[in-house]
This record gives sequence, C-alpha cells and structure tokens, in this order.
Amino acid sequence: MQNETSTRPPYPPSALRRLLMPQSVALVGASETAVSLGGRTLANLRSFPGTLHPVNGRHAVLAGLACYPSVAQLPQTPDCVVVAVPGEAVEAVVAECAERGVGAVVIFASGYGEIGTAEGEAAQRRLVQIASARGMRIVGPNCVGVAHRAAGLHAAFAEFPPSPQVVGARIGLVAQSGALGLGLSQAGEHGTSISHVLTCGNSCDVDVADYVAWLAEDDTCDVIALVFEGLAEPGRLTAAARRASAAGKRVAVCKIAASDAGRAAARFHTGTASGDAAAYSALFAREGMVEVKRIESLMETAAFFAKAPVPVVGASGAAIVSGSGGTAILAVDAAARHAVETPQPSAATMARLAAAIPPFGSPRNPCDATAQATRNPESLLQCADAMLADPHYGALVIPWGRAQPASLLPGLGALSERHGKPVCLVWMSQSLEGPAASEAERHPKIALFRSLDACFGTLAQWWRLGQPRRRNAELSSR
Amino acid sequence: MQNETSTRPPYPPSALRRLLMPQSVALVGASETAVSLGGRTLANLRSFPGTLHPVNGRHAVLAGLACYPSVAQLPQTPDCVVVAVPGEAVEAVVAECAERGVGAVVIFASGYGEIGTAEGEAAQRRLVQIASARGMRIVGPNCVGVAHRAAGLHAAFAEFPPSPQVVGARIGLVAQSGALGLGLSQAGEHGTSISHVLTCGNSCDVDVADYVAWLAEDDTCDVIALVFEGLAEPGRLTAAARRASAAGKRVAVCKIAASDAGRAAARFHTGTASGDAAAYSALFAREGMVEVKRIESLMETAAFFAKAPVPVVGASGAAIVSGSGGTAILAVDAAARHAVETPQPSAATMARLAAAIPPFGSPRNPCDATAQATRNPESLLQCADAMLADPHYGALVIPWGRAQPASLLPGLGALSERHGKPVCLVWMSQSLEGPAASEAERHPKIALFRSLDACFGTLAQWWRLGQPRRRNAELSSR
Repeated sequence: MQNETSTRPPYPPSALRRLLMPQSVALVGASETAVSLGGRTLANLRSFPGTLHPVNGRHAVLAGLACYPSVAQLPQTPDCVVVAVPGEAVEAVVAECAERGVGAVVIFASGYGEIGTAEGEAAQRRLVQIASARGMRIVGPNCVGVAHRAAGLHAAFAEFPPSPQVVGARIGLVAQSGALGLGLSQAGEHGTSISHVLTCGNSCDVDVADYVAWLAEDDTCDVIALVFEGLAEPGRLTAAARRASAAGKRVAVCKIAASDAGRAAARFHTGTASGDAAAYSALFAREGMVEVKRIESLMETAAFFAKAPVPVVGASGAAIVSGSGGTAILAVDAAARHAVETPQPSAATMARLAAAIPPFGSPRNPCDATAQATRNPESLLQCADAMLADPHYGALVIPWGRAQPASLLPGLGALSERHGKPVCLVWMSQSLEGPAASEAERHPKIALFRSLDACFGTLAQWWRLGQPRRRNAELSSR
Repeated sequence: MQNETSTRPPYPPSALRRLLMPQSVALVGASETAVSLGGRTLANLRSFPGTLHPVNGRHAVLAGLACYPSVAQLPQTPDCVVVAVPGEAVEAVVAECAERGVGAVVIFASGYGEIGTAEGEAAQRRLVQIASARGMRIVGPNCVGVAHRAAGLHAAFAEFPPSPQVVGARIGLVAQSGALGLGLSQAGEHGTSISHVLTCGNSCDVDVADYVAWLAEDDTCDVIALVFEGLAEPGRLTAAARRASAAGKRVAVCKIAASDAGRAAARFHTGTASGDAAAYSALFAREGMVEVKRIESLMETAAFFAKAPVPVVGASGAAIVSGSGGTAILAVDAAARHAVETPQPSAATMARLAAAIPPFGSPRNPCDATAQATRNPESLLQCADAMLADPHYGALVIPWGRAQPASLLPGLGALSERHGKPVCLVWMSQSLEGPAASEAERHPKIALFRSLDACFGTLAQWWRLGQPRRRNAELSSR
C-alpha cells in the first residue's frame, strides 16, 4: 500500500449529485438490440423517473422516446451521460459531454489502464484530462455502472435485481469489480435490502472511497458493504471511513487480491496496485471498519451491522438456543473458533429453560430445545426470552438445521427489540433460499447468516468495535 | 478418543439387510394425525414397494391398509419395525419385536443415554440386552430414521426430500444427528444426488461406522458423506473406512464437537464421548478420509469426490478461467490459502487463450475471458479446452459471479471427460440456487461449489489423497 497521504479528499456529496441523483440522463449508444450493452442499459434505465434521452444517430425514436444523434444536439444538458459505445468512439463522446457541461459520464468500455500497455494508460489519462478540465466526473472506464434505488437510477448494463427496501437494513454496496457487484447484488433476490450498487472499474476519477463518502451522507442507506482490490490513494478511504463513522454507519469491507498471485491478477483487471493486505487490515481496524475475509459473508455481515443495536455493557456472552443437539454443538464449536464466550446461564434462567422444554432437552447453553419443543414456537420463544433476559448474554444465536417456521420471526423480532440485543438466525439447511430464510433477511431486526463462522466472526467484531449510534436521519441534509 | 481397539467390527451387509433392504416394514404407533411422529412416518413410508403394516390398536384400517393391534398379531414377521410410540411404551414393543424375530427396530423416542441420568442409561442398556439376545438390530433411540432410495425405503419421521439419482454422483449420507442429516439432505432439493440418509442418534447398537461399512458395499452409492460427534469405538470407523477404500469410495467426514464447549454439549445430545479432535483428524488422514472442517461444504466436497477422476500424474496446478477479473483474483487468493499452485500457462496455451478472448482480456492464469467472451460460450469453452490440454494443469476452476449460462455445462462436461481432469464451477453469486447451479449439481462430471475455499480445500485434498479406482460395480455382490 502506498502511504496514506491523499492528494484529494473524497468528493463531497455536491460533486457527485449530478451522477447519483440526476434529473436527466442521456444514453449514448442506446440500442434496440436486447443483448447489446446499449440495449440492456436502455432497458434498465426505463424506470428512471427523470428525463431520459437516448442518443443514437441511426434512430429518431427509441423505446418510445425521442432519440438524438449526439449529446451536442440534445434539447437540454443532461446531468449524467452513460457512454455505451465501443472504445474507439469513447473519447470523442467524453469530449462532447465535457464541452456541453455534463455533470458525469459512466464509461463501460474496456481497453484502458487495465491492459497494461502504454497506449491503454495514455488513453485513460486523456479521458481524465478532458473531464477534469470541466469539473466533469468519470465513472470507469471498464465498469458496469451504478444504481441508486431511491433516485430510481439504474445506469448500468448489468441487471442488478430489485430488492426489498427495509428501513434500518438497507445496504449500500460498493464494488470496484462489476461482476462482484452484480453477484453480491443478487442477494436482493432472496430478501436482502440493497439501496445502492455502485461500481467504478478502473476508477480513473470516482473511486470506492468517493462512493463510501457519498453513502455516509445518504439517508437511504443504513450500512455500507465494500469490496475492492486496490486504491490509488488509500488515505482517501481513511477519510471516507471517518465520514461513515461520523454518520453512525459501519463499513463492512472485503479486500481482495491478498496473495501474490491475486495482486498480479489485479494488475490485469483494473490496472490497480493492490497494496499490502496487512497494511489495509490495519487501516480497517483503526478506522472501525468491519473486515470480512470471505466474500460469501459480506452481505450478511453488513446486514447484521445495519440491524444490530449497541452492545449491552458487560453482556459479552452469546446464548445459543437450537432445535437440535447437532446444530447446538456446531454452534459452540464455531463460537470457540472465534473466541466468543458461551457461558452457562444463571440458575434462574436455567429454571425458565427447563420449564419451557421437554425433560430430554438440555436447559443449558447451548440450549437444545429439541425437535419437540421447536414444533411448539411458544416454547422456543420462552427459551429465547429467558436467554435474552439473562445479563450474561449480549446476543442470541439460533442455529437451525431445517426450514424454520416463519411464524417464529415476529416473536423473535419483538424479543430482540424489547431486550435491546441482536437475534441471529443461522440457516444450516442446504435448502439455501428456503422461504423462512428470505423472511428473516427481510426482517428489520433479525440477522440471517448461512454459516456459523460468518455469524460468530461478525459477533466477535460487533463486541470489539461496538456499534455507532446512527445520526438522526431528520437532522442530516444533503 | 478412546484407543482404537474395537470389540466389534462393523456389521457385515448381511447383518443390516433386513434393516436397510427390508421386504416388509411395520410401523408401531402409525397414526392418521399428519403432524404426529406416527403420521409423518406413515406418509413417508407410503412409497415403500414391499409390504407395509400399520400397527395401532385403535384402528382396523389406516391409510387404506389393514391395521393391527400389535406386532405379535401381524400376519407375517416384518423385517423392520419402526417404533413411533412414546418413550414409556418403547421397551414393551421392542421386547415383542425381539420375541417375534424382527430383524431390526428403529426407535425415535428420546430420554435415554443422552439425558445423562442413571435411569436413562439403564433404560438404553435394557433395550440393547433385549435386542442382542435375539440378534435384532436397533437404530437409535433418539433418532429420526433412515432412507435408502434404491430400496424405496423412507423409514423416518423427517421428510428427507427427493433428489435426482445421478449414477456416478450419488452421495450416501450418514449423520449421527437427525437434524443435521435432514438439513444436509435438503441439498437434494436443488440437484445434489443423494442415495441414502442414514441417522443413528444415540447409536446404542448400529452406529455411523456400521453405516459407512454398508455403503462401501452398496452399489447404489458412489461416495460417502459422514457427520458425527463421537463414537463408542473409533476402531470400528477405521475398519469401515478401509472397506470404503477397498471399494474405491471416498469418505468425506465432518467431525463436530471439536471444542470443549462442543464436547460438553455432545454429552447432552446423544450421550456420546466425542473424543479428541486431533486424534480423529489423524485417523481420518491415515485412512484416506477427506476431512471437511465446515459442514456447509460437506455435500459439495462429497459430490466432487463422487465425480472426479484419478489425478493426472505431474499435473499439479489449477487453471482458472473466469468471466470477470474480480472473481479471478478471489480465486487465486483462495488457491494460495490452500497451497494449491496456479502456475502460468505454456506459451502455446497462452496463444490459444489470446485467440479466444478479447484484447482487453487476460490470456494468463487466471484467465480473465471478460464479460464479453462469456456471452459467447464457444470462447469460454476454447479457453477451458486450452487450459485442460496444458500439462501444467490437473484441474480447471471456473469462478462465476453471476448466473451461468447453462448452455455451457454439456461442453464443459465433455471437456472434463476428454481430458480426464475435473472441472469445478464455483458459484459466487448470492443467487444461491440459480437454475444453472442446480444443473451443475445434477451433472455427473461437473463439481459445483458455493465457496472458493470449499473448492480449493477439496482440490488440495484430492491431489494429496488421490482418488481410488472404483471397483467394478458388476463384480460386487451383496
């Protein structure tokens, strides 16, 4: 990692507003061909509530909209222009946009800094020079675009799926790699709430740090999930992380390109120097970011930090209630791997547990409520209540071996709120998207994990880092 | 772990045939009530192709079948009796079965060795004495039952889902814990091929080692997946593992109850002494078993070993072909974590890659074929063919960030067969059960993983252990 001095702080929201909250968008290279970049992007942009201008010299009308031959000939200056033309045509379009006074361009084309040739790097530098001379932002090149749900903006050729918008659980997703952004955004298909998908590819201008800083101030996002391979100026991420902390939002971060081979591959991906993994880990820890080592868990960890309350002081143990002895054993094994304490309950708690479960159950921690008790949701809720009331415990973990009766979720959510402690449902069935799993993901108070390691690793970080108090959304302004 | 001397070798197939391939089954406690154990088991047993006798003194007919008041009054001696009555009635039923000459009983009731009382242990010992005096097998108590697809037997109150039966990919699943057995069996819902689900709970007679030994000889199973917490006689597992090796079948094993707290919890689950994790790991390594540390990966690892060929001598590197730079970087990072080599291709291979991908792609290892190339399946297959032909590489890994075009799978499967090297598709999208993922799971030659760690961890073991040659199924006999 280069040293953390930064020649430019993250952009303030005002510098990105025309990009991410545009009133008008033009799409250069708009197409009727469904499989082309221009066609896919046009389909994604159709829900944009502002003015949309297709640009393509071969059409007068496209998708029912007036189509123009060039940006220069548009009836208004668009805030944002999506450039979906082949690489050789990009520079002229960017120059035209700069000339016209466009706020930002999103460039899909590849063949720039990432190919490792002097020509590619020079071409990328020329784009930067053209844009910066007029204060125009560039996203990309070599990116898949951006989406901002609350703004109705889906300026991307990738089909980021719709997702529920659950206040208190909305993840702003920032991904340098478009494919990873797309793959992670697909968590929205089964209930994860995603407010933004912001990619930046080669990051010749706007980078992941700028996006994090934007999301810190954007009240439609509750937590930030970040995946990236490297940064030109790591100091900018430090500054952005501090803005997120100040706004009371955690940043869950997965840094890729940790190995020598990974760093070499990153050079050929976005042309990024990926830096030293340990130095980045130190930066993340220092700035209160939540480092996630396995990308599979990034969205679940982010969702937990969106939903979790502030840890109760002194309540540093995890209580485990399960419908099966096997999942209970796996849970305490995983807690031990992550150095999360699982103390035994007080005598009073034990008595409450024993009263709620069959005699062949186990009124301990882990509490095996047995399959019999779990067919009776009331009994499981009694166990959960007893554990959450016990001052030993700061969080409740419920590992589940098979489809969870969804009828439990409202009760568990209410208990979490009443006790001010998080409830984590760990989905251990290979029925990965089972309906109750999705319902848990949509619940504003229940955190869902699909692995015990993700759950206990996240809890360990929550206890260590604490949870910032969210700035009152009403007080913040753009 | 106790020492590995065993007072009893695993049962031979003949000792378990009446349990697992019965001609006739009786269900004591059969019920019309859909939610009761007896009702659920009756529903599961309805597809049994042999003779099924419901036993319940309150009915003359149940589910269209003649119903009898007791095992003694049945018109024939059943091979197997499923005992779905409350604990206090179990001992009398077991005694009646032993008297009648039944081959095996499956006991669901809890409240025996697992509750940690002298009474519970004594009751369990009495069951063993009654059965062993007549050579009758016991499964359980405190278990959810067994299923053997090819025999049409689903003698369980748990609803193990149906799964495709893909010759060459069928997993025989052995689980001490019923809930884990059920949760893992749900992989069948999205395409994993499962031939058996065999649980044993308290294992007072038949235990997981006996099941492994059965599956070694059962030609309807291609590989064995095992999860357990402890064994009364670890030596029996050694003997069973050797039978599996002799039959050319790998055993993928996940040992739970590794931590102190996990061992304590196991005492209250199935009353099992769970032993020393390191000693078990040594046993697994010595006997060529594939240890899986995270239960989430057990079924995927087992499926890989069912499908994979014998490693090509000297081809010890993994080739990576991807449609995105981000997933390619993650893949080489994961390979490094598991000490799997990812050498660069030969000049000839590199030329073939370069000819197949766009100029801004990366004709290296990892090969970033770019999103553009992956919209053209032919180009990705050309890359796969080039990599598999290169003598550096013994396996091909394709990490995929989003829904995979299923049209690729037949081509990839054919390449895997032609080159005699495994092709692993790593599903990195959060769209966890996407249709192409299921199609890959159903494919007899393509191994699907949902995490890069599971993939490279498994490949590392495959290179280390090799792959036994399957005994010709025609030659084996029961």
